[in-house]
Amino acid sequence: MKHIKVIVALIVLAVHMPCVAQTDYMPSETNQPGKEFPKVNSEGRVRASILAPEANKVQLDIGGVKYDLTKDSEGVWTGESAPQDEGFHYYQLNIDGASVPDPGTKYYYGAGRWGSGIEIPAKDREIYALKNVPHGRVSEQLYFSNITQAWRRCFVYTPPGYNKNTDAQYPVLYLQHGSFEDETGWATQGKANLILDNLIAADKAVPMIIVMDNGYAFKPQDNNSTGGNRRPQSAFEEVLINEVIPMIDSEYRTHANREHRAIAGLSMGANQTMRIIMNNLDKFAYYGGFSGTSNYPTSDKIDTKTFLNGAFDDGKAVDEKIKVFWLGLGTNEPDPFPGSVGAFREMLIEQGIDHVYYESPETAHEWLTWRRSLYQYAQLLFQK
Amino acid sequence: MKHIKVIVALIVLAVHMPCVAQTDYMPSETNQPGKEFPKVNSEGRVRASILAPEANKVQLDIGGVKYDLTKDSEGVWTGESAPQDEGFHYYQLNIDGASVPDPGTKYYYGAGRWGSGIEIPAKDREIYALKNVPHGRVSEQLYFSNITQAWRRCFVYTPPGYNKNTDAQYPVLYLQHGSFEDETGWATQGKANLILDNLIAADKAVPMIIVMDNGYAFKPQDNNSTGGNRRPQSAFEEVLINEVIPMIDSEYRTHANREHRAIAGLSMGANQTMRIIMNNLDKFAYYGGFSGTSNYPTSDKIDTKTFLNGAFDDGKAVDEKIKVFWLGLGTNEPDPFPGSVGAFREMLIEQGIDHVYYESPETAHEWLTWRRSLYQYAQLLFQK
Repeated sequence: MKHIKVIVALIVLAVHMPCVAQTDYMPSETNQPGKEFPKVNSEGRVRASILAPEANKVQLDIGGVKYDLTKDSEGVWTGESAPQDEGFHYYQLNIDGASVPDPGTKYYYGAGRWGSGIEIPAKDREIYALKNVPHGRVSEQLYFSNITQAWRRCFVYTPPGYNKNTDAQYPVLYLQHGSFEDETGWATQGKANLILDNLIAADKAVPMIIVMDNGYAFKPQDNNSTGGNRRPQSAFEEVLINEVIPMIDSEYRTHANREHRAIAGLSMGANQTMRIIMNNLDKFAYYGGFSGTSNYPTSDKIDTKTFLNGAFDDGKAVDEKIKVFWLGLGTNEPDPFPGSVGAFREMLIEQGIDHVYYESPETAHEWLTWRRSLYQYAQLLFQK
Repeated sequence: MKHIKVIVALIVLAVHMPCVAQTDYMPSETNQPGKEFPKVNSEGRVRASILAPEANKVQLDIGGVKYDLTKDSEGVWTGESAPQDEGFHYYQLNIDGASVPDPGTKYYYGAGRWGSGIEIPAKDREIYALKNVPHGRVSEQLYFSNITQAWRRCFVYTPPGYNKNTDAQYPVLYLQHGSFEDETGWATQGKANLILDNLIAADKAVPMIIVMDNGYAFKPQDNNSTGGNRRPQSAFEEVLINEVIPMIDSEYRTHANREHRAIAGLSMGANQTMRIIMNNLDKFAYYGGFSGTSNYPTSDKIDTKTFLNGAFDDGKAVDEKIKVFWLGLGTNEPDPFPGSVGAFREMLIEQGIDHVYYESPETAHEWLTWRRSLYQYAQLLFQK
């Protein structure tokens, strides 16, 4: 009987534990130097704070929910969100109806704007931590596109040793951001450089170049740099194939062939890069789709006769041509992602196309899913 | 008599002209993609606009002045500043007492924070325009400092051709930001990369590497990454001399000697780099001080026996050692800059130390002064 009481007590304790507010708030690692707020606690709650003595209402707007802050006698508004998933989230403050960045954080391009970001420390954050290992370099590459008639920019990661081993040639991964993001995403909130530095130091990935371009590209007659997900007039494939790849093969010491070229993207970028590889199987041998596939947004059974002009109809040929076909998804992703990726996987299975499917535990359509996806995917590249 | 009337009429017109509000407002070039506001007109006025339907008071805070915005029936607040100097300015919005970045602009690190910036088009903006010329690359270099026991970062500009001419060696300019700025300043609001690209394309400057580090460096026992102008415990000189220069000479193809090394900085960076060159004349042969000197903030006559431990006392030796001693200042700079730079120049003249003195027309203690200074200074470096 005594044992039962102890067990009951432990159960009661266990059930109550999550309801006890954790007061272990620490400044977020995405804060500006010297800024105390926002803070994050061990439950993943975000505590925001801002001086706004004459405001009527201040809210923290994160994860699609607005949380009211309360004002103290000094005019400082403070409040907390519900627990957030581990990883990186975009958010903003709302002051009397004005949506503004939190002046406490660094700024990131996402949701079609430069705005605040916050990092909920993840259990596996070691995979993208800044460690005492050799570091590659991220360089800004400016180029004029004759196709879009505009200046464009990509960021290029060169692995540790690239500048010293001046005879070595390297394989290249073309890595794309998602909808309403840009070429800054992967090397900033994506931490692609640190993920590769750590993998290469642990001998889990081969040294490779990563090219991160802007997936929005339009010809002058249809110029719109902030367009949506599936604009039919996108010139991105043309820019990538006819301008970016030749430039990279000319400016960097690459192995300029399909066996040493991979392409991957997240969300809109997964959709885009899947179309690009299927149209250019002579140029790429590895595909990675992070939280997206080209049948988005439908979950309907795929008709391989018509889908992407029949690109998957000869499953055997696709299977032979693509060395690694890789798909990843967070377990908390909202509709329509699980459905459309699921329908796509069913098609792959029916067509006999080998693929790797990875699920990121307890993450949604956000950067921790994509950091983990890159960490998994990069280990499989160029292993021949 | 008729002639006199015409002349009077013309004078009246001329006097009135500047009072006619110019309505030629255009989106600022520092705006986020697709954002209409803020705007700038040909008088240099800034028009800000933000939706804040429940706010009581919204202000545009620029150049040390707060301008009230007015609300329309939709809850959109709009208003204009007085004319601003040409060039780049930091600014912010104030919403019911909360100082926040303008959600319309890109963000820049200055005034000790990431915040809004605006560009008033300058008559000589061609010197830093993005043009169809060969472009160098700006790379992020991460390094662990044993001196500060912390990860640090510098940005490194390599000139066009650096990655193709793999036998060539290059001279290096170490270029520092000002107070409450960081290592991102020179290649972002400073446009150092574009200035050099343009100069090199016009054969007005020799191809050089530029290293832009963070001037705030403190040992663990005195760690403060956001310190002020003249903290006696700064470890920056030690970090630069013992860690950064050896790293750059190891990681990049440099001419690793004093004749091929220059150092320059703006404001706090001018002060720091002047101390550094005078302590390390075996390491640098070129000095540039943009809006600053090491006697800051005083305008007192300099006693060369005691100033910088007598570093300028033997004027002849300094004059022989430093190939180019360069000083620049904006004509609109506030006290104490004209006074302290003036006192410093008098000392140079008395000591017989050759120097170049440049005045940037109608600019204050801001980035257009420093872009122009770099443009002038870089042309004199490493000639012969």
